[in-house]
Amino acid sequence: MAGSSFGSIFRITTWGESHGKALGVVIDGCPAGLALEEAHIQKYLDRRKPGTSSITTPRKEADAVEILSGVFEGRTTGTPISLMVRNTSQISGDYSEIASYYRPGHADYTFDQKYGFRDYRGGGRSSGRETVGRVAAGAVACRILEQLGVTVCAYTRSIGPVEADLSLFDRGAILSTPTAMPDRDASDAAVAYLEEAKKATDSVGGVMECIVEGLPSGIGDPVFEKLDANLAKAAMSIGAVKAVEIGDGCQVSSRRGSENNDGFRLREGRIVKSTNHAGGILGGISDGDQILIRAYVKPTPSIFLPQQTVGTDGQEREIHIKGRHDPVIVPRAVVVLECMTALTVLDAMLLNMSARMDSLLDFYGKERN
Amino acid sequence: MAGSSFGSIFRITTWGESHGKALGVVIDGCPAGLALEEAHIQKYLDRRKPGTSSITTPRKEADAVEILSGVFEGRTTGTPISLMVRNTSQISGDYSEIASYYRPGHADYTFDQKYGFRDYRGGGRSSGRETVGRVAAGAVACRILEQLGVTVCAYTRSIGPVEADLSLFDRGAILSTPTAMPDRDASDAAVAYLEEAKKATDSVGGVMECIVEGLPSGIGDPVFEKLDANLAKAAMSIGAVKAVEIGDGCQVSSRRGSENNDGFRLREGRIVKSTNHAGGILGGISDGDQILIRAYVKPTPSIFLPQQTVGTDGQEREIHIKGRHDPVIVPRAVVVLECMTALTVLDAMLLNMSARMDSLLDFYGKERN
Amino acid sequence: MAGSSFGSIFRITTWGESHGKALGVVIDGCPAGLALEEAHIQKYLDRRKPGTSSITTPRKEADAVEILSGVFEGRTTGTPISLMVRNTSQISGDYSEIASYYRPGHADYTFDQKYGFRDYRGGGRSSGRETVGRVAAGAVACRILEQLGVTVCAYTRSIGPVEADLSLFDRGAILSTPTAMPDRDASDAAVAYLEEAKKATDSVGGVMECIVEGLPSGIGDPVFEKLDANLAKAAMSIGAVKAVEIGDGCQVSSRRGSENNDGFRLREGRIVKSTNHAGGILGGISDGDQILIRAYVKPTPSIFLPQQTVGTDGQEREIHIKGRHDPVIVPRAVVVLECMTALTVLDAMLLNMSARMDSLLDFYGKERN
Amino acid sequence: MAGSSFGSIFRITTWGESHGKALGVVIDGCPAGLALEEAHIQKYLDRRKPGTSSITTPRKEADAVEILSGVFEGRTTGTPISLMVRNTSQISGDYSEIASYYRPGHADYTFDQKYGFRDYRGGGRSSGRETVGRVAAGAVACRILEQLGVTVCAYTRSIGPVEADLSLFDRGAILSTPTAMPDRDASDAAVAYLEEAKKATDSVGGVMECIVEGLPSGIGDPVFEKLDANLAKAAMSIGAVKAVEIGDGCQVSSRRGSENNDGFRLREGRIVKSTNHAGGILGGISDGDQILIRAYVKPTPSIFLPQQTVGTDGQEREIHIKGRHDPVIVPRAVVVLECMTALTVLDAMLLNMSARMDSLLDFYGKERN
Repeated sequence: MAGSSFGSIFRITTWGESHGKALGVVIDGCPAGLALEEAHIQKYLDRRKPGTSSITTPRKEADAVEILSGVFEGRTTGTPISLMVRNTSQISGDYSEIASYYRPGHADYTFDQKYGFRDYRGGGRSSGRETVGRVAAGAVACRILEQLGVTVCAYTRSIGPVEADLSLFDRGAILSTPTAMPDRDASDAAVAYLEEAKKATDSVGGVMECIVEGLPSGIGDPVFEKLDANLAKAAMSIGAVKAVEIGDGCQVSSRRGSENNDGFRLREGRIVKSTNHAGGILGGISDGDQILIRAYVKPTPSIFLPQQTVGTDGQEREIHIKGRHDPVIVPRAVVVLECMTALTVLDAMLLNMSARMDSLLDFYGKERN
Repeated sequence: MAGSSFGSIFRITTWGESHGKALGVVIDGCPAGLALEEAHIQKYLDRRKPGTSSITTPRKEADAVEILSGVFEGRTTGTPISLMVRNTSQISGDYSEIASYYRPGHADYTFDQKYGFRDYRGGGRSSGRETVGRVAAGAVACRILEQLGVTVCAYTRSIGPVEADLSLFDRGAILSTPTAMPDRDASDAAVAYLEEAKKATDSVGGVMECIVEGLPSGIGDPVFEKLDANLAKAAMSIGAVKAVEIGDGCQVSSRRGSENNDGFRLREGRIVKSTNHAGGILGGISDGDQILIRAYVKPTPSIFLPQQTVGTDGQEREIHIKGRHDPVIVPRAVVVLECMTALTVLDAMLLNMSARMDSLLDFYGKERN
Repeated sequence: MAGSSFGSIFRITTWGESHGKALGVVIDGCPAGLALEEAHIQKYLDRRKPGTSSITTPRKEADAVEILSGVFEGRTTGTPISLMVRNTSQISGDYSEIASYYRPGHADYTFDQKYGFRDYRGGGRSSGRETVGRVAAGAVACRILEQLGVTVCAYTRSIGPVEADLSLFDRGAILSTPTAMPDRDASDAAVAYLEEAKKATDSVGGVMECIVEGLPSGIGDPVFEKLDANLAKAAMSIGAVKAVEIGDGCQVSSRRGSENNDGFRLREGRIVKSTNHAGGILGGISDGDQILIRAYVKPTPSIFLPQQTVGTDGQEREIHIKGRHDPVIVPRAVVVLECMTALTVLDAMLLNMSARMDSLLDFYGKERN
Repeated sequence: MAGSSFGSIFRITTWGESHGKALGVVIDGCPAGLALEEAHIQKYLDRRKPGTSSITTPRKEADAVEILSGVFEGRTTGTPISLMVRNTSQISGDYSEIASYYRPGHADYTFDQKYGFRDYRGGGRSSGRETVGRVAAGAVACRILEQLGVTVCAYTRSIGPVEADLSLFDRGAILSTPTAMPDRDASDAAVAYLEEAKKATDSVGGVMECIVEGLPSGIGDPVFEKLDANLAKAAMSIGAVKAVEIGDGCQVSSRRGSENNDGFRLREGRIVKSTNHAGGILGGISDGDQILIRAYVKPTPSIFLPQQTVGTDGQEREIHIKGRHDPVIVPRAVVVLECMTALTVLDAMLLNMSARMDSLLDFYGKERN
């Protein structure tokens, strides 16, 4: 259906364009009684803010979030939480030219084909700025998950050819490096690589990864609402993502069953898997192990080299895009992947509460049979 | 929500277990007036039938479909189409042992964790046999798409290390080789590889691919209901799929923007892309080019080598799975990918009909403004 | 969306036509672990079976239900429950004439207008026989509600001018009188009235009522998913229902606030209402009191008097309907109202489990804050 | 699901509390290309504004709507339309007392039971002020319907014992009388009646009615998504509505079939009904005739007479509500019924576009079979 809602019980609806008055999200179905204030959300929005390092666009956007409803005396009331971020930094002159042609790698052409015209200012609804609403809602989901003992952590796996060494995993580095890599040396190398790409007025791609820890087993539904299917949708819905892996992903296709199966064994009396090729999901349902999702991101399509395209007048032409653009999408998209993962996992956890008669009987204070 | 429904306007709900009485699907929202008979559906079900070659399980299942409702005098009526396949070949003795332990790579453990117990016969609802309903419904979707000039074609890209040479693409080979590869030489090599794996009582993985041709531009929705996001969910919802790519997929992450952007140009007066790294989708909306989706499939988890696992009694043990299992999942899963793709694309096309005021005014016979 | 699904967590999808091969329903989202066998469902289907008294059509339909999936070793598995009833008693010759004209009060004309043609045999999908699937699913919902201490009871309030005296409420009479009235004397009077109407080859209308007892307070959602809004939809979706009341219904419109407000007071330490004009729902959420819903049913549109109508050939004509029809719809529709109410209430109870952070923390074994 | 969304293709999500910062709505799925500006919406919001006559609360609320997204250069873009109304007139001191008790006839108690606590200021989310979002979205729906030749018109049928004489139907009076009655004399009498009730510090109920003209036949879906079922839900979801009728409503239950059936005949070559007892809907699908829906509204629960209730401290007590309250809900709720009806009808019209293969083939430029 209309594309701007996500989730079933914890259901969000985002709105807003890059250069409109504001962007926002409505969360419907948030459990009542969660302590919530704007600072909790702002922390996540700040992670996707531009202008914080040499490798992001120098645009300044305050991205200050305002809670408009659904919170009373510091706690969620169970009714819709409306969150809004006003746009403040649009330079309206910047984008007038792009009204006249279709930028390669962007959605200009397809929006025109679908809707007959488009809000061309900064990409309108197809701008990466659309993710403001996702991140604001995801921050709330993360806060709930935290109380449930579930942590969601996304980071940059690689930028161009520079890959983080995960054996040195440094969680602090994710928030403090400009690349969001969990490895400071790799981050430095990636920054150098990006500087070089910027000089070449080109852009680069990369890979991001998200791990979920503490998720109980039994979460997710069989068949179409498999946890991995919904995670794949969540990740692929982020602009510029072109591939998604769960666990060992593509690699499983060239393995033998005897190499790929994760045996079960006991650890401190609990059933665990000996290995985790599966990425924590079997038959679409969590198995209690770490969930691993990986997303491959294309290079920023806005590059400053001349490109061949077609104008809205139907004529072929060469264009030279100007403006302020990140040379790589990944570092600012990492928090978006984290938030989309959190939204998916939380929704599955809420839905799971009614999976068994015993839970229902317990909840309503009746004897189990 | 409950996991067995897929789609919004053309909405399907599947049901049934591997060793239950029957499996089936209800299609709600199929447009009225489509000529439809059982033979149209049977053709697709036959492609996923086992027992047709040396590389599939020797189980015999007739998988004869019955149309129970929604078709009158040979045409769909617009009301729910109920399709059923009776199970006929279950050997009930085969599976009694697996009740007592958790098979590695299967959903036995996670189903128990979620629901408290499981139908252990042949994997119950988590069996690949669950896809009977998907294929029956997908056959109807394919038939509609055909009339709209849209063709959906899935095939085996690789089995273990053996890859089809797509420069020799032979559509006929897909339906006539045991591997569903579009390259007969590669297929022969893959069969040899599989025979060797079977001898080693092991299993292998592979890759399948699906192309959609003739899809108009403008199909799909921005943000969460992107066409590629829904295709990713559709593919990842197929058991054993662990990674999904759109277009050039993972490769884009190591490219420069100047290499990856697809320029626009004119061909016979129409706007087309010079290349198709994007796989036919920009900003979640089709661009008129060929759609390409690729799915990576793990090796069959049922192998005949001894494996370490834990019993439902909570004790570690070694198991030796018996029974009849395909050494590779891909050849029979290809038609499932084709059907899931068709369901996704058709639903997006139906939804797209109401995207513009002009279409609405035309449909209800009013003047455009 | 496609019209044959109902509910969000406990979600049902019905299918089938009056004279097709079979009718049925798929229940997705039924909690796992419910003891369930065909006899539990058959009991409800038998209440809507025709041919059981002089005031229903003499058609004989066995309406034997078959559980096709979702139940293993006598308990629901959490996966879709497919229920089917084969049609056995269709006399195909009976309905051939009605293909040629539009019966007043029936959906012949509107189905043709919507879909371009229709399955005219016995009304096809618009037949009252469509409710077989609703009742089969409702029986499962009732069984769960029973274990939660919630009882749902529908009965005939009036037939034509004959009204049951509720001060004599006799629950046993509902199941044992041909009218489903909870008052045997009124039932006798109604039967006499119906015999007279039958002699006049005419039909009559009536009123049915449903009460829900034992429902905890706090069930239902504000705004659009109010419990009363969903009950109204549930009741109005039953063919022939033209009005729905909650609690005192229409009467409240001519009252003063001081007459209509239900004060709160204490009874045995619990907060209760002094009166129940509201019918157990305030602001769309249950208040712990008895829920009351009332549905007004039109007379059977199939009458044997001559009627003026238009043929599918576009000519005016007089018709004389033949065949076997109930002179009143209400007695057999009572169980449908009971089932639709049960489905609505159960779904709201399942959804309610995730309304509070505390419930979430309890369920996942974490400390409340 | 979470209760604040309505519709499937044209889908709205409302948010906001009586005394929060703002209220609003997000419309997702609005067709692209509709000319839309704030004035179009403001006109509808002004109809529900208080403070405009002696019979509404003297509170002043500007209720100025702001379009935040989804409109570009004066036309809808197909992406979410976010509409917001800032709250400006809350007197925070007014409502502090009601935190301590449960007002009869209000949702205070049920919100506490569901969520554990509530935003008690002015009723929070359960306030009539919640309908601001419905009306803003409904104004957009009405504007589209107008272009499709469909008019939706709601009015007050009666206030207490004073009923409008519809044989004198005066459309202008609906917008210009303080009662929204289509009969100026009845309106004067109703005002007098209300003045008297106000003096008695009491409140009164009433009836509102909505007619839809110009709706083509064939709109609505069989079984659960019947047009009348969705209209009933739409109307019953408005706070204070306790009964809903379609067409002749309750009256049909005491009629004979021969009295109630609407025969078909020809008028100027078109098939029409001779009478319209059915209220324009047969089998859940529109028949081309006028749609009629009627809603019965309880008296305003906030009255100034002393009332018995229970405090949140669990003690019985007598309360005296103060503040500013309408003595009758109906006149300001009429536009809400109009908007809910418009939303329901438009959504059904959009969904209907994909009901037939022929429409699909036409839309995508293929030959009909």
